[in-house]
Amino acid sequence: MKINMAHGSGGKASAELMKDIFGKYFNNDVLSRMEDAAVLQINGKIAFSTDTFVVNPIFFKGGDIGKLSVCGTVNDLLMMGAEPRYLTAGFILEEGLDTNELETIVASMAKTASEAGVYIVAGDTKVIEGIGGLYINTSGIGLIPDGRDISSANLSEGDVIIVSGNLGEHHACILSARIGIENHIHSDCGILEPITHALFENEIKVKAMRDVTRGGLGTVLNEFAEASGCSIEIEEDSIPVSQEVRGFSDILGLDPLYMANEGKMIFVVSNEDADKALHIIKQTEMGKDASIIAKVRQGKGVIMKTHLGGSRAVDMLYGEGLPRIC
Amino acid sequence: MKINMAHGSGGKASAELMKDIFGKYFNNDVLSRMEDAAVLQINGKIAFSTDTFVVNPIFFKGGDIGKLSVCGTVNDLLMMGAEPRYLTAGFILEEGLDTNELETIVASMAKTASEAGVYIVAGDTKVIEGIGGLYINTSGIGLIPDGRDISSANLSEGDVIIVSGNLGEHHACILSARIGIENHIHSDCGILEPITHALFENEIKVKAMRDVTRGGLGTVLNEFAEASGCSIEIEEDSIPVSQEVRGFSDILGLDPLYMANEGKMIFVVSNEDADKALHIIKQTEMGKDASIIAKVRQGKGVIMKTHLGGSRAVDMLYGEGLPRIC
Repeated sequence: MKINMAHGSGGKASAELMKDIFGKYFNNDVLSRMEDAAVLQINGKIAFSTDTFVVNPIFFKGGDIGKLSVCGTVNDLLMMGAEPRYLTAGFILEEGLDTNELETIVASMAKTASEAGVYIVAGDTKVIEGIGGLYINTSGIGLIPDGRDISSANLSEGDVIIVSGNLGEHHACILSARIGIENHIHSDCGILEPITHALFENEIKVKAMRDVTRGGLGTVLNEFAEASGCSIEIEEDSIPVSQEVRGFSDILGLDPLYMANEGKMIFVVSNEDADKALHIIKQTEMGKDASIIAKVRQGKGVIMKTHLGGSRAVDMLYGEGLPRIC
Repeated sequence: MKINMAHGSGGKASAELMKDIFGKYFNNDVLSRMEDAAVLQINGKIAFSTDTFVVNPIFFKGGDIGKLSVCGTVNDLLMMGAEPRYLTAGFILEEGLDTNELETIVASMAKTASEAGVYIVAGDTKVIEGIGGLYINTSGIGLIPDGRDISSANLSEGDVIIVSGNLGEHHACILSARIGIENHIHSDCGILEPITHALFENEIKVKAMRDVTRGGLGTVLNEFAEASGCSIEIEEDSIPVSQEVRGFSDILGLDPLYMANEGKMIFVVSNEDADKALHIIKQTEMGKDASIIAKVRQGKGVIMKTHLGGSRAVDMLYGEGLPRIC
């Protein structure tokens, strides 16, 4: 069956779609009440975040827009030191979308949510004119345990910045699909909880964390430098990139420093904690390619010490003429 | 200036758009930290809701998609008896959207949020291929005071259902714009807080509330009847519709019972509270056309006592062949 305008009318066709697809996979006590809003009991500090997902194609190597939509918001909550708990899901369906595709994506969201330990407690679906596309917004609430103070404004001179793994995989995967290049590059789309869990369990004092998504590492480092009023000095040779992504980006003239990821993060610790933190996350499957990439200095902006021994300023990404990749 | 792909890249062009438009209007302490998520202190029961807005045209008589996007989620929170506090805003911008239009819409959201007493604490913007369109998701958190128990499952025999005013205005307004009919019908797009405030301040025991949006009154009454396992008997002559909307819908063969609204609600009280509740909300500007429209009976489904003295079953809306109106 194809999605049509009746599915967005709020009437019986909408209700059937809810029951047959969303209700089948997002089944929980809160959602099944079908009220205007979920009612939840919360006590303490929370993180509250939103993200919209417009990736095209909606299915790709390593994931799909459903998995991505859960990972993205869950990761944003994790990056504030929170334990993700509740998500909402807002769908925009284009007319002509195959309901089998929608069901596969909803099932993928449910599976990813279950793995992340979050409940989808409220949702909304609209239908627009189009050619079978699909966009998903997720918003999330996570609980922040007492004593966690994670902020991009916390960096100070001497701190060390660690990246959790190889860069550029999501970007290279989506771009390959869009321009029709055959390769084996998979999106890194995933939930960063194994890494944050390992850090907190081992009592590493994390000062700042951020997932490295749109805009890439270069952009996140600039945001950190600006928020903390300091300079960041990055070592070119320390930036982890797989051989396949390196080859792909060399051919297309892309810089992994600005390529998007969906399962990578950086975090900042004091110099004393750096080796221990690196050792700990390298024990996790997700963090096995982690690397110390940068140090925090006095000053402003991001400077790269290049392979050849020179220095160059690393600006934020301006924008891209290439097809959108997230 | 027109929106282009660079504005969605997560780099400098995105950051400039944030600063020049979103930062200018959505300025508050939480948002200005520019972290991955807002950090908030919450204690107690909350309502958590999401809604996506795809109305076309994005500007219409009585409002715009920005105003609508705040009213919609704020109203969903109000309908659970909550005091709305925090919103997130997720934008999907189509390439070619004029940034002046975007700014007008963002300003409208900020004004409406301020009137509703809510803060926009987190946001996200994506850019997609298109022809200058715009879609907005808002998700919201509201605090539920102790002792409130509002649920569509609370109806029991003898209860009375009151609608807050004339039906069909949003639907007629948007449809007029889409099919090019000139008239003076304005959308009722607005925040229902004056009505909920009046009810709670006067200690009316509200059993259930719902805003009457997509699907119209007929659909909401069916949802209530099903959730509570009862029948609802509606009086045709009691349904408030303005003369202009009545004329418009007669010409097009539309039934106000299924037309969408964006500033109307129904609520359910016991028979003893009905006259007092009606009197109270009729004192508010927003509720001046309120009317007792239905009674709760044993049985199932929704029955209408018609103008001519007959009875007919009122089903949910199935779907519509007409242009989408919300």
